[in-house]
Amino acid sequence: MDPLKIRILTEGKNLGGGILKVDGFINHQVDPELMDFCGRELAARFATVNATKILTAEISGIAPALTTAMHLQLPVVYARKAKPITMPDQIFLTLTPSHTKGRMVELIVSPEYLTADERVLIIDDFLASGQTIKGLVRLAQAAGATVVGIGAVIEKRFEGGRDVLTSLGVPIEAIAVITDMSDGKIVFAD
Amino acid sequence: MDPLKIRILTEGKNLGGGILKVDGFINHQVDPELMDFCGRELAARFATVNATKILTAEISGIAPALTTAMHLQLPVVYARKAKPITMPDQIFLTLTPSHTKGRMVELIVSPEYLTADERVLIIDDFLASGQTIKGLVRLAQAAGATVVGIGAVIEKRFEGGRDVLTSLGVPIEAIAVITDMSDGKIVFAD
Repeated sequence: MDPLKIRILTEGKNLGGGILKVDGFINHQVDPELMDFCGRELAARFATVNATKILTAEISGIAPALTTAMHLQLPVVYARKAKPITMPDQIFLTLTPSHTKGRMVELIVSPEYLTADERVLIIDDFLASGQTIKGLVRLAQAAGATVVGIGAVIEKRFEGGRDVLTSLGVPIEAIAVITDMSDGKIVFAD
Repeated sequence: MDPLKIRILTEGKNLGGGILKVDGFINHQVDPELMDFCGRELAARFATVNATKILTAEISGIAPALTTAMHLQLPVVYARKAKPITMPDQIFLTLTPSHTKGRMVELIVSPEYLTADERVLIIDDFLASGQTIKGLVRLAQAAGATVVGIGAVIEKRFEGGRDVLTSLGVPIEAIAVITDMSDGKIVFAD
């Protein structure tokens, strides 16, 4: 079993309702060695898609996207949820539902860093309902760029996100695929 | 001249009013090789402070804090600006003014990951007015932890943040120290 799955089983917490607490090593406190493993693993799985750029969403996508980018030697763009004053007036913006906030949030990318000639690899910490990743796909499409792959650290397959994204016809990879979290369980696909 | 300063001079933009646009390589699009250089450099400067944890603030602190953490082999905690549902009810919370948002924002850390025995190294992308870093210092102090150093990728020395933090008596380091941005200039300290 790989170090990520071991960590999920030993330190992750099934809080019920499909909520997996991994904020001791993924998305509040980050274990850099584990995150580097995740980046190396995702980089290996997308080694042949000829990506030119990695796209993720702030906040918790930044760490795995950065380590993947380090291993693929590609720039990474993180979509912002608020427009900084340094961004031009004309931007790519899409709305996506936020689980945590219970409302729609904006995902914003500057056209300076996402252009029609890019081959975009989307990386996020979780693939759950697929809504955030779908938002990132829309941003890439708005720029005229080509999405060439979708990668996540953890997939909650029972939330159906993979089905939502399959029509894109690109490889979808997750390091830890969880198929069942009912009754306090954490069951991996393999 | 180091690769960060070269990049600031060639690709950074002085937008006036003390605003430095570096979102092509630091805080919207990230150059992983440059960010790794920054992490290695900050790790070297704090090699002897015996830190046990790195503390930063989401969003743009995450990348430099993570690469510093990789080189020091320490866990990194990023303070959240909204409380995720996975966080306990009892938290450390402080308010800090946000330049970008023009209002106070919350900085939140879970007591699970910041405890009294920690020696905390604070890392952020910018040291400007010092207000965000002061907020992180308050969080560390609330936990009873010891702040042992403060590091930033870029310091805008003319905004006075260093003076605000000097009373802490800990080493304060920045890779690129900018002393003057008047009249469209970008002048480094050395």
